Amino acid sequence: MLMKMAVVGLGYWGPNIVRNFSDSEQVESVLCFDSDPQRMEKTARKLPRTRSAKSFEDVLASDVHGVAIVTPTSHHYALARKALEAGKHVLVEKPLAMTSEECASLIAIAQDRKLILMVDHTFVYTGAVRKMKEIVSQGDIGDLYYFDSVRVNLGLLQHDVNVLWDLAPHDLSIMSYLLDQKPTAVSAVGISHYNHQEDIAYMTVHFGERLLAHIHVNWLAPVKVRRILIGGSKKMIVYDDTESIEKVRVYDSGVQMVSREGIYRTLVEYRTGDMSAPKLDNTEALSLVVADFINAIRTGIPPVSDGLSGLEVVRILEASQLSIKNQGALVNLTDGTIESPYEHVTKNRT
Amino acid sequence: MLMKMAVVGLGYWGPNIVRNFSDSEQVESVLCFDSDPQRMEKTARKLPRTRSAKSFEDVLASDVHGVAIVTPTSHHYALARKALEAGKHVLVEKPLAMTSEECASLIAIAQDRKLILMVDHTFVYTGAVRKMKEIVSQGDIGDLYYFDSVRVNLGLLQHDVNVLWDLAPHDLSIMSYLLDQKPTAVSAVGISHYNHQEDIAYMTVHFGERLLAHIHVNWLAPVKVRRILIGGSKKMIVYDDTESIEKVRVYDSGVQMVSREGIYRTLVEYRTGDMSAPKLDNTEALSLVVADFINAIRTGIPPVSDGLSGLEVVRILEASQLSIKNQGALVNLTDGTIESPYEHVTKNRT
Amino acid sequence: MLMKMAVVGLGYWGPNIVRNFSDSEQVESVLCFDSDPQRMEKTARKLPRTRSAKSFEDVLASDVHGVAIVTPTSHHYALARKALEAGKHVLVEKPLAMTSEECASLIAIAQDRKLILMVDHTFVYTGAVRKMKEIVSQGDIGDLYYFDSVRVNLGLLQHDVNVLWDLAPHDLSIMSYLLDQKPTAVSAVGISHYNHQEDIAYMTVHFGERLLAHIHVNWLAPVKVRRILIGGSKKMIVYDDTESIEKVRVYDSGVQMVSREGIYRTLVEYRTGDMSAPKLDNTEALSLVVADFINAIRTGIPPVSDGLSGLEVVRILEASQLSIKNQGALVNLTDGTIESPYEHVTKNRT
Amino acid sequence: MLMKMAVVGLGYWGPNIVRNFSDSEQVESVLCFDSDPQRMEKTARKLPRTRSAKSFEDVLASDVHGVAIVTPTSHHYALARKALEAGKHVLVEKPLAMTSEECASLIAIAQDRKLILMVDHTFVYTGAVRKMKEIVSQGDIGDLYYFDSVRVNLGLLQHDVNVLWDLAPHDLSIMSYLLDQKPTAVSAVGISHYNHQEDIAYMTVHFGERLLAHIHVNWLAPVKVRRILIGGSKKMIVYDDTESIEKVRVYDSGVQMVSREGIYRTLVEYRTGDMSAPKLDNTEALSLVVADFINAIRTGIPPVSDGLSGLEVVRILEASQLSIKNQGALVNLTDGTIESPYEHVTKNRT
Repeated sequence: MLMKMAVVGLGYWGPNIVRNFSDSEQVESVLCFDSDPQRMEKTARKLPRTRSAKSFEDVLASDVHGVAIVTPTSHHYALARKALEAGKHVLVEKPLAMTSEECASLIAIAQDRKLILMVDHTFVYTGAVRKMKEIVSQGDIGDLYYFDSVRVNLGLLQHDVNVLWDLAPHDLSIMSYLLDQKPTAVSAVGISHYNHQEDIAYMTVHFGERLLAHIHVNWLAPVKVRRILIGGSKKMIVYDDTESIEKVRVYDSGVQMVSREGIYRTLVEYRTGDMSAPKLDNTEALSLVVADFINAIRTGIPPVSDGLSGLEVVRILEASQLSIKNQGALVNLTDGTIESPYEHVTKNRT
Repeated sequence: MLMKMAVVGLGYWGPNIVRNFSDSEQVESVLCFDSDPQRMEKTARKLPRTRSAKSFEDVLASDVHGVAIVTPTSHHYALARKALEAGKHVLVEKPLAMTSEECASLIAIAQDRKLILMVDHTFVYTGAVRKMKEIVSQGDIGDLYYFDSVRVNLGLLQHDVNVLWDLAPHDLSIMSYLLDQKPTAVSAVGISHYNHQEDIAYMTVHFGERLLAHIHVNWLAPVKVRRILIGGSKKMIVYDDTESIEKVRVYDSGVQMVSREGIYRTLVEYRTGDMSAPKLDNTEALSLVVADFINAIRTGIPPVSDGLSGLEVVRILEASQLSIKNQGALVNLTDGTIESPYEHVTKNRT
Repeated sequence: MLMKMAVVGLGYWGPNIVRNFSDSEQVESVLCFDSDPQRMEKTARKLPRTRSAKSFEDVLASDVHGVAIVTPTSHHYALARKALEAGKHVLVEKPLAMTSEECASLIAIAQDRKLILMVDHTFVYTGAVRKMKEIVSQGDIGDLYYFDSVRVNLGLLQHDVNVLWDLAPHDLSIMSYLLDQKPTAVSAVGISHYNHQEDIAYMTVHFGERLLAHIHVNWLAPVKVRRILIGGSKKMIVYDDTESIEKVRVYDSGVQMVSREGIYRTLVEYRTGDMSAPKLDNTEALSLVVADFINAIRTGIPPVSDGLSGLEVVRILEASQLSIKNQGALVNLTDGTIESPYEHVTKNRT
Repeated sequence: MLMKMAVVGLGYWGPNIVRNFSDSEQVESVLCFDSDPQRMEKTARKLPRTRSAKSFEDVLASDVHGVAIVTPTSHHYALARKALEAGKHVLVEKPLAMTSEECASLIAIAQDRKLILMVDHTFVYTGAVRKMKEIVSQGDIGDLYYFDSVRVNLGLLQHDVNVLWDLAPHDLSIMSYLLDQKPTAVSAVGISHYNHQEDIAYMTVHFGERLLAHIHVNWLAPVKVRRILIGGSKKMIVYDDTESIEKVRVYDSGVQMVSREGIYRTLVEYRTGDMSAPKLDNTEALSLVVADFINAIRTGIPPVSDGLSGLEVVRILEASQLSIKNQGALVNLTDGTIESPYEHVTKNRT
């Protein structure tokens, strides 16, 4: 049986989802809706087998199996909820919603109704990230030391979310997918120059004594940087998404403890070895997102980026936002409280 | 009159200072001392007009005009103090000392005795940084929005200082030189995997509402990154020190507020224009450090990187260290206290 | 009046032309034909407003205004000729035909029937090449010294043409467009490892005493290089098409004659100055090809890459091929003869 | 026994040889001579254990074991000859001499007198080239298909040699070292804009039916390119000497013949696999040149870049020069004659 799909929201990203639905051999037709009729017209002009809906209610009333919600973030929750309540499987653009409570609510509704709730964490489906998952899972890089991501460019400033909510979901979803550990606390700082939304932000995610993650997102950078460094005790990875090929480079380099004859203390030395860039699968990630969504609908097997991974990302974003408002205070991810360990510190540090 | 110079400490950096003294036409001879005789022999072998001293006391007792202290950081204060007290002008490797009190003490002694106290903030003397100073001073980049520096590589782990004290002085001295503003507060996080010294650290320097600086230093990175992004309201700069030429690129790009017909709210749009890479002076920076030291001795005109700039860098490092020990708490740079604004925050953030 | 277009050949490039026709607001419908029905089906699946023809004869018999011929090169002439004879305007994929005689014949037919004959020299329509044309035309780079192009990658080996005929039309069309001079002679060497078609070739194009062009094309290179260097007496250009932005860099560098006091002979010195990367128009080049074709049909104004520019490229390719077969002998482009100046050279060179 | 060495010529490269002699633990002293006393003074100022000679005759009359000739090329032969005749071992800057006859003469004299004659083909001693030699020798890249080298930059125009004689010795010496085959013929073109010396040149070296080498050298390029591509039937190498690390990249990519079900003819397909960048030895190449020279003097074992390899390079340069003067005619390397196969070609190519 071929699937009928709908896409709500035809801004920047929506048409890409329409195209991937349209290209899929498992999809019969794509119903499109946007409050701007010109966008619907333009989409229909470019992509075959699409139909335009008159309203969101029309989409809900239609016979589509699944609905992709690709609107501004502030509308995700309301639209996704309505779609689930109308019995539709739902794919939501990242981030899943504006609060972790909204996410939890969507997850609960989907579970109740045995519907698929998926979030479009596209990067998790790229050949590069899948290859890194393989490398990390096999233990090739040893103990994880750090995850450092820089995602900056001259970007379109969003009106309903700041740069953290706009860009960091990519980094957080990659981080969660690659690291088999739960973060314990988060802190963040940000600054705003236009619109009262932070346009530059730095986030630190703590995983205990030995592993630290850090994310730098910036809408005001003159160059595009998309680089993730992953350090381990045995190997290290550089993932540069701006490279056309060789996006992932694995360095047989590291630091090691050595004892030298005649020296009584242990020395730390660094070691550099070969570098290799594994061949990557070039399949368009979004086509795999769409395929995973369709497979989940057909089989009930949860997609890789399911509602829970959407919640995990929003939980960290939410804590980061709280930290930004409190001058970078550490926010505990277990209970959502701000750490306040500073009271028993002698203020005069000397 | 030709100068007589001494260099104390012939590890990684010391021989470079010996070489620049030796190459200078204003220097007659270079007296060298290191507790390791092999290092003295090797230096004497490679560089002419150098002599070896038997002890640090010999250096102090000699007729040299100036002494460069290029030892591990923990010895800077004691040695620089003795040299000043022996009436020598002093050039100290960065960071100037281990605490701001030590720095202040050295500054006071030098002032008392009318001696030059200089810190070797080499980067400030590079063609790249001098060109950026010119661009920023002329107002070409408009209001400053951010200063973001990444300085990572697989590095030699130091025993007496962590990665922040080892690498961040470069970034902080460049920052102080370029930005005509005083930082108000700092926060930092770091993590340690060997030796109980942080090998990865992130530092945020606050300058008020509109300007944020951030520094990422890392000894465990498989690739060398040396990149500073400077964002302004009119132009933006990328300074990539790993490029052999075109280290500084100026982007005529930015974000602007626009009003469009028929739209009642103001929109934020980005704008990209030409990029240009100004020609840079390639003179070895350290030769200019040495020349500035000699000039200061001769004329009494303070060098660009004088004791005060050394103090400024140490003051920020010190506050960062306090912040790291307090889980990233914001440390006020005016009075050295930790901010504790968290008490009046409702812990339940929802 | 909206245009009706046809595209014959739906291999690698054909669907891009279909898409651009389909996206054009001046095109009503696109009739597609390929001898492989699966390709037609796939195109129809992906692009709206396309129809499939049953045969090439059907295309000719239809009411389309223009036909794009996007088949293997060996079929260009026969198909383009038939299309012109059927009264259709014709856009032919590069190279225009297999021989200059074929090109001349197509040009003559088109002229006779007052039809547009255009060749798809896509690169000439890119923002990068148009910007370079602007720079060269304004005289900014001074006298032209050389044009050096490298176009290599691991490529699909063609069956009916060698690497020269496959790749060099790009370089030759850019060269002809930018350089306001006629080449006088050409030589080339090539080597073949599979299929008896050269897979690596080097071509030198002579323009007299002071200007030399050279093209390196290679199907067996592990990396993709797309770089053109243009040297002038005042400035120099590097055009790197693999860059995502800043494809064109203009260097205020060069060589100059200087006289120095006390030195009686003139010295040659080099001079390096600033580099700038002008902002480029990012419009998809093929959409401008299509627009120029449509405009030519409507107005009769010849397109930038008309039949004559197609002939010029083929004339050079043809001479190169003759040169390859004669061990790199210089082939005169005026009369198509091989130069044989070697008879009066003393063979013993010492 | 420690060696006494002399260096004649202290222009751009000479001081580097002085420094490497001076740094060597096997060298006792370095006698320097240049007709310009300022150069001698500057060298003596910078490097210890050097002495200045009053004349070249003084050098010959001294007790030095070996003499390095680092003068303009046109003086190599006369000076090297005199040094050999005075019983000195000789290291000559590349190219060995101006003609192959001169090279042969030097080789003969050295053999007669049982002296070492070495040419400074520095690149052959780099970690990068030695690693490539290892890879090629082990057969990892399969049958060799091509060797393509680009060596361009804005360079100092030489007065006594053209760009080919200045730069191509690097490429030719690397080529000869890596490829275990003798070239059969060569052709070249060049063009001159200043000084009547070619400042841009292209050279093609033939090795039979299946292997082609090509070298592009240019003094008028705005950017520095130092890239060698080596293609084989199994793997391919990219050697980019402008990279600070990862200069050598090995691509597990290539072209293969495949037969597909239902298709009667064989197809050629390309295949891309992993890339790896082997760790390279970073020892300064020139220190290994010096060590090989000293070792040869001590043991009589010929250095890697001996007189014969110097002759081989000059033989190809000489033939190239003849080709340039004859409009790119193919010059046979066996007997030094120009091929003239063009007489029996029908001039009308159609």
